[in-house]
Amino acid sequence: MSPNHPFDPLASREISKAAAIVRREFPAQTPNFRVITLKEPAKAQMVPFLDDQNRGINSSKRPARTARVQVVLPGDSAARFVELWVDLDRAVIIKKEHLVGKHPYIDSDYMQAVEKACIEDPRIQEQIASLELPAGATVIVEAWAYATDGLNDMSQRTTMAMDDVDANYYAYPLDLCAEISEDLKVTKIYQLPSGVDDRINDKPKPFDRRKIHGAEAEYSPGLRSSPRATTKPYQVIQPEGPSFKTQGNFLEWEKWSMHIGFNYREGLTLHDIRYEGRSLFYRISLAEMFVPYGDPRTPYPRKAAFDLGNDGAGINANNLRLGCDCLGHIKYFDGWHTTTSGDPVKLPNVICCHEEDDGILWKHTNFRTQNAVVARSRILVLQTIITVSNYEYIFAFHFGQDASIHYEVRATGILSTTPINIGDNVPYGTVVAPGVLAPYHQHLFSLRIDPAIDGHNNSLQIEESYPMPIDTPTFDHTGKTQAQVDSYANPFGVGYATRSSIVDHEGGLDLDFTKNRTFKIINENVINPVTGTPVGFKLLPAYSQMLLAHPESYHAKRSEFATHAVWVTRHNDEEHFPSGRHTMQSVGGDGIATAIGSRSGTEESLVRNKDIVVWHTFGSTHNPRIEDWPVMPSEKMTVGLKPANFFTGNPGLDVALSTQESNRSVLVDGGDDTKPKSDCCKL
Amino acid sequence: MSPNHPFDPLASREISKAAAIVRREFPAQTPNFRVITLKEPAKAQMVPFLDDQNRGINSSKRPARTARVQVVLPGDSAARFVELWVDLDRAVIIKKEHLVGKHPYIDSDYMQAVEKACIEDPRIQEQIASLELPAGATVIVEAWAYATDGLNDMSQRTTMAMDDVDANYYAYPLDLCAEISEDLKVTKIYQLPSGVDDRINDKPKPFDRRKIHGAEAEYSPGLRSSPRATTKPYQVIQPEGPSFKTQGNFLEWEKWSMHIGFNYREGLTLHDIRYEGRSLFYRISLAEMFVPYGDPRTPYPRKAAFDLGNDGAGINANNLRLGCDCLGHIKYFDGWHTTTSGDPVKLPNVICCHEEDDGILWKHTNFRTQNAVVARSRILVLQTIITVSNYEYIFAFHFGQDASIHYEVRATGILSTTPINIGDNVPYGTVVAPGVLAPYHQHLFSLRIDPAIDGHNNSLQIEESYPMPIDTPTFDHTGKTQAQVDSYANPFGVGYATRSSIVDHEGGLDLDFTKNRTFKIINENVINPVTGTPVGFKLLPAYSQMLLAHPESYHAKRSEFATHAVWVTRHNDEEHFPSGRHTMQSVGGDGIATAIGSRSGTEESLVRNKDIVVWHTFGSTHNPRIEDWPVMPSEKMTVGLKPANFFTGNPGLDVALSTQESNRSVLVDGGDDTKPKSDCCKL
Repeated sequence: MSPNHPFDPLASREISKAAAIVRREFPAQTPNFRVITLKEPAKAQMVPFLDDQNRGINSSKRPARTARVQVVLPGDSAARFVELWVDLDRAVIIKKEHLVGKHPYIDSDYMQAVEKACIEDPRIQEQIASLELPAGATVIVEAWAYATDGLNDMSQRTTMAMDDVDANYYAYPLDLCAEISEDLKVTKIYQLPSGVDDRINDKPKPFDRRKIHGAEAEYSPGLRSSPRATTKPYQVIQPEGPSFKTQGNFLEWEKWSMHIGFNYREGLTLHDIRYEGRSLFYRISLAEMFVPYGDPRTPYPRKAAFDLGNDGAGINANNLRLGCDCLGHIKYFDGWHTTTSGDPVKLPNVICCHEEDDGILWKHTNFRTQNAVVARSRILVLQTIITVSNYEYIFAFHFGQDASIHYEVRATGILSTTPINIGDNVPYGTVVAPGVLAPYHQHLFSLRIDPAIDGHNNSLQIEESYPMPIDTPTFDHTGKTQAQVDSYANPFGVGYATRSSIVDHEGGLDLDFTKNRTFKIINENVINPVTGTPVGFKLLPAYSQMLLAHPESYHAKRSEFATHAVWVTRHNDEEHFPSGRHTMQSVGGDGIATAIGSRSGTEESLVRNKDIVVWHTFGSTHNPRIEDWPVMPSEKMTVGLKPANFFTGNPGLDVALSTQESNRSVLVDGGDDTKPKSDCCKL
Repeated sequence: MSPNHPFDPLASREISKAAAIVRREFPAQTPNFRVITLKEPAKAQMVPFLDDQNRGINSSKRPARTARVQVVLPGDSAARFVELWVDLDRAVIIKKEHLVGKHPYIDSDYMQAVEKACIEDPRIQEQIASLELPAGATVIVEAWAYATDGLNDMSQRTTMAMDDVDANYYAYPLDLCAEISEDLKVTKIYQLPSGVDDRINDKPKPFDRRKIHGAEAEYSPGLRSSPRATTKPYQVIQPEGPSFKTQGNFLEWEKWSMHIGFNYREGLTLHDIRYEGRSLFYRISLAEMFVPYGDPRTPYPRKAAFDLGNDGAGINANNLRLGCDCLGHIKYFDGWHTTTSGDPVKLPNVICCHEEDDGILWKHTNFRTQNAVVARSRILVLQTIITVSNYEYIFAFHFGQDASIHYEVRATGILSTTPINIGDNVPYGTVVAPGVLAPYHQHLFSLRIDPAIDGHNNSLQIEESYPMPIDTPTFDHTGKTQAQVDSYANPFGVGYATRSSIVDHEGGLDLDFTKNRTFKIINENVINPVTGTPVGFKLLPAYSQMLLAHPESYHAKRSEFATHAVWVTRHNDEEHFPSGRHTMQSVGGDGIATAIGSRSGTEESLVRNKDIVVWHTFGSTHNPRIEDWPVMPSEKMTVGLKPANFFTGNPGLDVALSTQESNRSVLVDGGDDTKPKSDCCKL
C-alpha cells in the first residue's frame, strides 16, 4: 500500500516512528500506548490538495503526515491520560494535552487482569463453591466495563461454561457478581436479581439443575447436533476477474472512485467519494453505536455499551476469511494498530471488497413490439465485521451502478443474558431458555455523512408531499360546464404537491413517513440544467424508535445523539463523535447536542450553504425473540443515499444489457424450454 | 404439472371444458370470454383436505374443481357482463350472476380497436397535421382507460415515436387528446394543458422543435450510445444443482413447503405455506395495486390505474428468459389464460424459481478462543415481472433459512409523461427532459396475508415499547444506600418494557415507529413452551405515506384500502380484493372499508381468535427524480414476516458452516494471503 496519500492510515513504520518520538517525550516513564492513529489532515488543507489531484496536477499542497497518539502514564495522577499530535514529516510533537477526567477505551490486557483478580479472590471462590455447580463446569468471568450510574463504576459478572472451551457460556449466567477496583481488588460481591422483585442483596442460591441445557443452546459445530445436508453448494465465478481496480487504498469501480480509510475506532472509513469525477461526499463513516439495556434493576442500569467509543470497531474487526464472509473474487485490506508498548500490530483482512449481483437494475418491455430490454444490477460491497464480546456486527457499504450508496448493518452473534428463576417472567426481557433471560435493549447507530455535493457548501432541504387545498365545496360536478370545473385549481381533490424548506441552524430533526418527509443534501449553487432545481442527494432513512431512557438518565446524557434521527452541524475537524471522543465512563456533556448548544446563536451555528455534516441516527429496539437464541440470525438495517436531480438522467442507462452468453444460467427441467438467444430478452 | 391438486391453476383442458359448458349456456350468442380461472375451493372444504394430506392420508375430502368464468354478451344490455361458476367434475354451472353496473378488466383487443378508431378519425388527422411534426415522426395513440371523475369516462392521448418502432415515445408526449365512446366514435378532441395555468380548451400549438431529444432519451439498445464495457461477467454455479424440489406446483426447499398458484389477476399466489410441516400461512398474494396521479388539471384527475384490477398481474406477466431475469439454476412455471373465444392460451415462464446467496446468516467469534463460526444465508426466490404499458413491476418472495419471508417489489420501466411548455414548472411534477413532465403519483400496494399460524384461529396483537414510569424525583442517588435506591422500581430512568393489546374488531390500523409499534399474528391457543407466550409471526412493514387524495375524491372512494397501513378482517372466501372485484370504471363502495362497515357490530366483525386476514398497504409517493429517466432504476420496497416466539430457537441454527471447499472464492492480490482452511473460519 502507498503510505503517502494523506488519507492513508498510518503505516507500520509511521506507527513505530510516532511511538519513538512520544517515548522521547517521557524519558523517565514507560507510557502505555492506547492509540497511535492517523490524525486526518484539516479539511482546509485537504481540499486544495484534492482539487489538484482530481485535476491531475501533482499537488504541492500535500498536508503533513500527522499521528494522533494517546498514552496512559504510570501512577494515578488525574493527568496521566495524555493525547499528543506528532508531525511525522518534521518528527516533532505539535500538540500535547492532558485529558483530565477522561478515560481511554477498554484495555483488553487490563480486562484480563481484572478477570484473573476476580476469579482468584478467595471470597469469590467461596461463593462459587456455595453454588454447587455441576461436575465439569468451568466458571468464566465476563468482565463488563459498566457505565456509571452515579454510584459506582466497574464490575463484572460470572458465567460458567460446560466442559468445552467453546461452549456457549451465555447459556449459563450465574447470579454471582463482583466489583473490582482500579487497582484490581474485589470491593463488592453480590447475587444478581433472579426474579422480577429480586434485589441484589439476596442470599446465594445453589445452581438450579433444571437450568442445564443440551445441544440446543450451543452454536459451536462440535457441540451441536449435525447440520442439515440439504443446502447444495453455490459458487460465484468471475471468469474475467473483478470489475474494480485498487492502487493502495484508492479504489475505482464502474464510475465510482474513493479512498478507503481505517482506524481503531470507526473501523472502515470512506473518503473523497466521487462519481464520474464529480464530488459527492468528503467522508462517510459509522461514528458511534450505543447499546443501552432496559432492565431497571441494580446493577443493570450501568449496562450500556458504546461499542465504538469504548471498544473500537477497528480493534475488534474480524480477520475475514476466504469463502466465509464473502463470495466471488475478494480483495482484502489490512489494518494496523499498536501494542501497549507502542509496537505496530497488523490487523489482517479487516476489510473485504467484492462484487455482488443485485437482481434487475432496470427493465422495459415495449408492449407494442414485445421487445424487452433488461440490465442487471452489479454492486460493489465494502464489508467489515466486528465482534464485541457476545455480539457481532456486519457493516457493509453497497455502491450501485445507479449512483446509489446503501449502508447495511447486520446484527448477529449471541444475546447478552442474565439469570432468572425458572417460572419467572419480567416485562423487560424474554426468557430464551430455562433460567436464561435476554433483557430488552436498543442498538442505536450514528452514521456520519460529510457531504461535498458538487462542492463543499451544501444545505439540508426538507421536502414534504401534501394534498393541495380543496377549493370546491363538492366533488360532484355533474351538470357543471368544463369551464366551471376548470375554474377550480383542484376540482376533483386529487392534486398533491411538494413543499420544501431549508434548514438554517444546527440541530436535531425527526422523520415523518406520513408526510413523505424527505431529507435532501443539496448544493444551492449548482442548478440542474433540466429540472431547474439544485443538485442533490436524498437520504433513505431507517425508521427507528429513538432512545427510550429518560432524558435525565445517564444513558441520555452520555449518548446525546440518540434522541433525533437526523442532525445537521457545521463541519469541524475534531468533531467526529456524537457522544464525544471519550465515552469510557463518561458522565455526559460531551456529545453532539452539547456542541450544538455551545455554538447556538453564533455564526458557527448557521448551516445553509455552508460546509455541513449530516448525522443519521438509526437502529433497533431489540426485544429478543427466542428465534435469536442461541445465536442470532442476522437482523438487517439499511440506510441509503440516492441522487435526487443531481444527474441529467439515469446514471445506469449505459449498463450493458443482460445476456445468457455472459450470465450462463442453467435451465431446470420443466417450464417453457426456450432456447436462449444472444439478446436473451427479446421475445 | 399435476392438474389434480385443488390449488393448481386450471389446466388447458379444464379451460376448454369450462368454455364449452358456458357456450352451451348461451346457444344463441357468442360470448366474449374475459376470464376462465380457478375458483379456489372454499376454505371450509380445503382445510380438512389439507389436514389429511399433511398427515399423509389419501384424503376422501377433495373439493370439486371449479372454474370462475366471466363473459361479456353481445349487445348493450346492462346485464351483458356475466359471471358463472362451473363445476368441472360434474360439468354443471353452479352459479350464474349478471354483474349489472360492473365492467370487466381491460380488453386489449378492444383497446387496439380504440387506438385505430382514434388515429383514423379525420379530425384527429387534421389536428395532427396542425402540429407540424418533424419529418419521420410516427404518431402513436396511447390509450388509457381513464377512471371516472364523475363527468366522463374513457379517453386517450397521443404521443409520437421518432422513426424506430422501439423509440421511447414517452419522450414525445403531444398535447392532443381525444375521448372515444364505447362504440368507437371520437366524441371529444382537445389539447392537454401544457403549463401551470393551462386549460384543456387551449388552441393547438405547433410542435416545439426544442423538444426533440437525442440518445439520452432512449433506452432501446439500437438507439442509445454504446454501453459501458467495464462490468465483467458474473456467473452463479451450482455444481450439485438447486436445493429445491418441485412436483407440479408443489414446492419444497430446505424446511419449507408450499403450493404455487397463478391467476390472471394476482399473478403469483402462494398456498398452504409450512415450515417443518407446521402451518404458517393459508394464502399470501398481492391483492391490489393503485396508482393515482397528483396532477389536478383536467383531464388528469381521471388518471388512476388499478394495475391488478384493471390490467391483471397474471395477464401482463413477462415471459422470463434464461440469463436475464435471474442467475443460477432456474425453474420456470407457465400460466394459462384464455382468448376472447374461450380457447386456452399458454403464458410461458411467468414465474421463475431460483436460489440466491444472501450473505451471512449468523456468525460468532469466541473472543477467548478466537474460534469463529459462520453460516451463510441461502434464500429461495419466487419472482414474477409484469409490464403495465409504461411501467414494470418486479415481484419477488424471498424465503429464508431463518423461517423469514420477505416480499420485495421493484418498480422500474418508464415514467408516464405529459407535455409541458419549455421553461414552465408545476408543483406536482418533475421536468425530466425539455417539454416532458413526469407528474407526481403514488404506488400503493395491498399485500393480502391469510395466516394459519399453527391453525386457523389467529389474532392480531399490537405491541409497543414504552419507557417505564419514573418513580424517583431525581436520578442523583449519591449518598443514598443501596436499599434506598432499590426501593424504586426504575431508580435510574433506564427501564423500558413492552405492552400489547389484541384487536377485537375488523378495521384499519396505522404504523408508528416512534413507539416501535409491532403487529404480530399470534395463535392464542398455542403457547411457546419456553417463553410462555402465544406463538406468532410479526409483520416487518414498509413505512409509507398513505393516499394523498381527498377522502371524498373518487381516488379515495374507489381504492378504500389506501388509507391505513394494516387492515384486519374475518376470512371470507370471496373477499380477495380490497378495492372490490371489479375496479374498472368503478365509482366506489366496493372495497375493504365498505365490507367492514357492512359487518360492523355483528358477530362477523369479531377478529380475536378467529379465522382472520391481515392486509398490509405499502408503497411509495413517487415524485420522479430526473435519474428515473428515460428508464427508471429499480426502486425497491420490502415487507417481511418473521417468526416471533414461534419456534424454540433459531430455525437456522442447523445450517451447515461456510467452507472454502464449498464456496470456492478467489483471492484478489494483496491483503493477508491466508491459506484457506477446511473450516475456513477458524482463526
